[in-house]
Amino acid sequence: MSEPTLSPETRELLETVSVATLATALYKRGLRNQVIQDVRPVARKGRNMVGPAFTLRYMPAREDRNQLVEFRNPKHPQRHAIETCPPGHVMVMDSRKCAKAASAGDILITRLMMRGAAGVVTDGGFRDAMNIGELEMPAYHNRPSSPTNLTTNEAIEINGPIGCGDAPVFPGDIVVGDDDSVIIIPAEIADEVAREAVDMTAFEDFVLSRVKSGASIIGLYPATMDANLEEFARWRTENAR
Amino acid sequence: MSEPTLSPETRELLETVSVATLATALYKRGLRNQVIQDVRPVARKGRNMVGPAFTLRYMPAREDRNQLVEFRNPKHPQRHAIETCPPGHVMVMDSRKCAKAASAGDILITRLMMRGAAGVVTDGGFRDAMNIGELEMPAYHNRPSSPTNLTTNEAIEINGPIGCGDAPVFPGDIVVGDDDSVIIIPAEIADEVAREAVDMTAFEDFVLSRVKSGASIIGLYPATMDANLEEFARWRTENAR
Amino acid sequence: MSEPTLSPETRELLETVSVATLATALYKRGLRNQVIQDVRPVARKGRNMVGPAFTLRYMPAREDRNQLVEFRNPKHPQRHAIETCPPGHVMVMDSRKCAKAASAGDILITRLMMRGAAGVVTDGGFRDAMNIGELEMPAYHNRPSSPTNLTTNEAIEINGPIGCGDAPVFPGDIVVGDDDSVIIIPAEIADEVAREAVDMTAFEDFVLSRVKSGASIIGLYPATMDANLEEFARWRTENAR
Amino acid sequence: MSEPTLSPETRELLETVSVATLATALYKRGLRNQVIQDVRPVARKGRNMVGPAFTLRYMPAREDRNQLVEFRNPKHPQRHAIETCPPGHVMVMDSRKCAKAASAGDILITRLMMRGAAGVVTDGGFRDAMNIGELEMPAYHNRPSSPTNLTTNEAIEINGPIGCGDAPVFPGDIVVGDDDSVIIIPAEIADEVAREAVDMTAFEDFVLSRVKSGASIIGLYPATMDANLEEFARWRTENAR
Amino acid sequence: MSEPTLSPETRELLETVSVATLATALYKRGLRNQVIQDVRPVARKGRNMVGPAFTLRYMPAREDRNQLVEFRNPKHPQRHAIETCPPGHVMVMDSRKCAKAASAGDILITRLMMRGAAGVVTDGGFRDAMNIGELEMPAYHNRPSSPTNLTTNEAIEINGPIGCGDAPVFPGDIVVGDDDSVIIIPAEIADEVAREAVDMTAFEDFVLSRVKSGASIIGLYPATMDANLEEFARWRTENAR
Amino acid sequence: MSEPTLSPETRELLETVSVATLATALYKRGLRNQVIQDVRPVARKGRNMVGPAFTLRYMPAREDRNQLVEFRNPKHPQRHAIETCPPGHVMVMDSRKCAKAASAGDILITRLMMRGAAGVVTDGGFRDAMNIGELEMPAYHNRPSSPTNLTTNEAIEINGPIGCGDAPVFPGDIVVGDDDSVIIIPAEIADEVAREAVDMTAFEDFVLSRVKSGASIIGLYPATMDANLEEFARWRTENAR
Repeated sequence: MSEPTLSPETRELLETVSVATLATALYKRGLRNQVIQDVRPVARKGRNMVGPAFTLRYMPAREDRNQLVEFRNPKHPQRHAIETCPPGHVMVMDSRKCAKAASAGDILITRLMMRGAAGVVTDGGFRDAMNIGELEMPAYHNRPSSPTNLTTNEAIEINGPIGCGDAPVFPGDIVVGDDDSVIIIPAEIADEVAREAVDMTAFEDFVLSRVKSGASIIGLYPATMDANLEEFARWRTENAR
Repeated sequence: MSEPTLSPETRELLETVSVATLATALYKRGLRNQVIQDVRPVARKGRNMVGPAFTLRYMPAREDRNQLVEFRNPKHPQRHAIETCPPGHVMVMDSRKCAKAASAGDILITRLMMRGAAGVVTDGGFRDAMNIGELEMPAYHNRPSSPTNLTTNEAIEINGPIGCGDAPVFPGDIVVGDDDSVIIIPAEIADEVAREAVDMTAFEDFVLSRVKSGASIIGLYPATMDANLEEFARWRTENAR
Repeated sequence: MSEPTLSPETRELLETVSVATLATALYKRGLRNQVIQDVRPVARKGRNMVGPAFTLRYMPAREDRNQLVEFRNPKHPQRHAIETCPPGHVMVMDSRKCAKAASAGDILITRLMMRGAAGVVTDGGFRDAMNIGELEMPAYHNRPSSPTNLTTNEAIEINGPIGCGDAPVFPGDIVVGDDDSVIIIPAEIADEVAREAVDMTAFEDFVLSRVKSGASIIGLYPATMDANLEEFARWRTENAR
Repeated sequence: MSEPTLSPETRELLETVSVATLATALYKRGLRNQVIQDVRPVARKGRNMVGPAFTLRYMPAREDRNQLVEFRNPKHPQRHAIETCPPGHVMVMDSRKCAKAASAGDILITRLMMRGAAGVVTDGGFRDAMNIGELEMPAYHNRPSSPTNLTTNEAIEINGPIGCGDAPVFPGDIVVGDDDSVIIIPAEIADEVAREAVDMTAFEDFVLSRVKSGASIIGLYPATMDANLEEFARWRTENAR
Repeated sequence: MSEPTLSPETRELLETVSVATLATALYKRGLRNQVIQDVRPVARKGRNMVGPAFTLRYMPAREDRNQLVEFRNPKHPQRHAIETCPPGHVMVMDSRKCAKAASAGDILITRLMMRGAAGVVTDGGFRDAMNIGELEMPAYHNRPSSPTNLTTNEAIEINGPIGCGDAPVFPGDIVVGDDDSVIIIPAEIADEVAREAVDMTAFEDFVLSRVKSGASIIGLYPATMDANLEEFARWRTENAR
Repeated sequence: MSEPTLSPETRELLETVSVATLATALYKRGLRNQVIQDVRPVARKGRNMVGPAFTLRYMPAREDRNQLVEFRNPKHPQRHAIETCPPGHVMVMDSRKCAKAASAGDILITRLMMRGAAGVVTDGGFRDAMNIGELEMPAYHNRPSSPTNLTTNEAIEINGPIGCGDAPVFPGDIVVGDDDSVIIIPAEIADEVAREAVDMTAFEDFVLSRVKSGASIIGLYPATMDANLEEFARWRTENAR
């Protein structure tokens, strides 16, 4: 599981497509469970979060191992993860879909942003969410959760394979988030999926413009009538898509 | 179950009352479960959605029946429903309270709006919710859901009786949504309930104005003291309610 | 369980700290479950709600005891609670974590505000939430819920010990809510916790300013390096914290 | 809320009817929520549990108030409740539908039996359930739960009105449990409901005997054909029902 | 959707294989969701239930349409379904995964058995479950549920496509239940799946006999070592499988 | 995290105490979450399961990585785990509390038993549960689950730290299961906890014998009256406890 790279070209393409379109592109390949279920932006950013996954896994906290003193350990996995997540990556946290206590708070998430991360996702909740929402870096969670993460979470593994919101996440998989949700693209197919999604987006934009002009979706979406395919070809040329 | 009609007068009345007030009017008639549970506006509109219900029922998707190619069928029930929902109606989708995959996306919902529908409700989730929220037509769901609807939903029946968010919905029942939630009024009693709710709203507005002036609710809400009923009569005259 | 008082000094301190910080201060004392789970502001206020708890307990409604006529009783516990909650207090409602029907609506909550309450919390939902959100007084709930409270809730006890969102609440405990969530501080330790939280907040603000300047969290948060403690001392002086 | 009495005659009648039949009798009176949801016998007894409700309410445990030392207090509400529940009564525990920690264990439940109680119900779980199931006294819960009750439960009130499994329970209401589930009959109507349920049971037994002989349910259940009513009259005479 | 037939040969084969084996056979064909989730035998029968599906769909009950008097209608869909389910079929009920009120009781289920049905499944609960469990005909549900079905369920459609426990069910699909759970086999592939499952069962029985003799599963299950395939061939001959 | 050992003495002691008693012993040490929530015996054994934990972690299955062909890999983690779990150990599976698909089936569990394992626990479900329940080796799960584990589970890690039913489990921790549930004892304190639990059990047995003779629990449980402590001392001598 060596770290794949995300080419600048693919990153740029992925910034222009929606999670919904990517979900359909993966569905075509038999992948049905790549959208992280039941997470949302802490605050909407109006732009995509894109980057390779850098993962952190939490397990249920055992009280004797999770006193506040633990954070004094410079190698505490939660803090160590924050300090080692590579720039441009998205930190993805497996919090066992439990938002009863925090996955992290604003100090750690701000540090993550300062270190150049592209974003952060947890299937639990962030404390200080009101502050995290105001950061420039996108963050996604289930809901605000103010109790310290020690209450229920022990950070146990950095950058291994995890589940997040019932989606499988391998380190280096490409994470894309928009104002609706977050999806995980297997690293091996990120380039081709990105290109395909850009084409699909062009078609969807064409369809939407036609629908807004009063066209029926029958024969247009999908384009079972040849006339619509020809019109789409013209539209692409005219709109440089 | 012939299609009842919604008179322009009743529609107008229903645009001026809240779902909460309607819920109480139905409660008086022994109807306790008409509010669709756990749906919310994709985006708040500051006005009511009103119209007769046109329903669509989803069942769990069987993989061999739900490949992308299905959408090429011009009679595919999901697309056919969108193209046959009468103007002024609200499309209500029974998605079995499951938001793991989409009930529909922005292209279909935009088409529904272009065809003159009054709104759309699902007890699942919409993909492209960020776009659907910006449409003029109101839409209600549980939460954004980006996976294509084929992942878990097969549209199986148009305009039959359904459940939506644990509420019973018959085609032609009157649907009213405000910035809080959505309620189903049985078609047969929509006119009388609308009139009663307008009266109740007048009284509630009167009470609220009195409460804001410092009045106690005891004897006022409900108006067990005659003085309050007399004052309400004056208030109605003065305020042309 | 005599009514403790909240000193003006402590109230002022608690207006300046976050629920997250208070949660950590209570965690140090072995209290892990004081944050009310899964409630949120009806509308964000940008300031803290602070006050002693005045409680109301609901039990499941039995239909013969919960017809609309019950509200004509001037001693109906729900209305009586609204009219007896002392100024400056926060009304906390145990709605058994059920938002299928309302805990209260805008008329009652407005009256509560007019009587000088500091806020209101339910682990169910409010009807007329769109109006309650516009009141100056903060309100917290799970989600909007339009059905009248009689549908599932009977108000049964005023100002006894309750659970709210799985947190234990005793009358007179100090309630603090921010734009993320709500916490319950046992009355006996409110003063010391408030002071400690103010100190913790100063340190967190210092850390955040350092992190925003590019500092690593290792050695800083917590401050295991002496240099950071010295810098913090200087920062406090310079910033009059 | 003075303690009503359960006459020996009514107790005897209630020992011969099922919870299902009682639920229908209450449904006729507009009471739809009297069955305690999602509890089951710790072990099936093949006979009914019948008795007036004696209630115990738990609230979420606050750690500083719920150390093992608390049990040394002879007036600790949990132990005090066990020692004061009147003979012939059923102890009903409001455990907030949470089985993460125990509502009680075998020592307390054995003591309750020795004191002559008719049974015990919790909407949480019992520890030592394997032993409790072997007692002669019936017990109902959600599932076995081994953690000590202090972990999440503080006994806070004896014999007040409570919710149990979403059913409203007032002290003195009549509790009936069979091998399927448990129902709460309001004390005021227990006598008439018991008599009616006995008649209904006779009819159901008659119907079942006819169905087992090959009869259709149409016209028989309910008995819309007069011939069936006449036959039922004969059957009652012949079978001394 | 004409009614397919189940040949006596296929029925016989399906009586000898487990739901688990059938689930794997369907998994090979891309069908992942055919097991009805979270239902169990009312009582274990030690033999399989097999038959084509005859479906009944419930919607949420509207109070004015669901009084006890409704059952006097000889065409009431619930009773009509019981009286029209063909012999040898399994009645499958879509109760919207809600066991708060009954899907049916012992009188109806006994009548269904007398009419020759092969079994019954609901994703809700049965009342009189203690009696239904003693019938010879297999029955599956989520849990006992004593309230009359009118409380939350209105029978609305007979023999249409439904969901049951998140599995898609079309009339005529082949239903197989064992002591663990229930699966739905699409009618078109029932014959081939039955034959394949019988072969798979033979292999699994062979493997189990070898494992019980101490063999490792590596190379044996699946049989990647040729020796094991040869041994299996011998075993089939010797055991007439 | 080197493998701790379980002494024969401690194993023997742990075979004589209940999970409930162990839970209280751990509660005294501040450990509140060591009972695995919501698992139960596949079939009751009437004796304890005891052994050090050998763990297996599942993550959500990605379809392209989880076809049946994967099982041909002799190093597939699920099969490899079965073949490497040391004799006397309990295999504990983190199935993310999801029983929609199996954690394992009877062939693998039988092999595990043949290799000398002391038992197996999953917070998901077993397929072929009806067969697994008949094995001599104890097994615990949430409920039977017939779909092949590939449907939702990919075995990803052997013998790392995991969560199981919200309890933290480290390899080598001591697992004890009785007919009610399963608990995890941190390896470091297993010896002392075992000894303490044996003493507690003696006292509980003494108390139970006294309660069955009619004694009150006040002053006896806990033994705040000296007379009871003296009587207990005599009882221990007489009963050789």
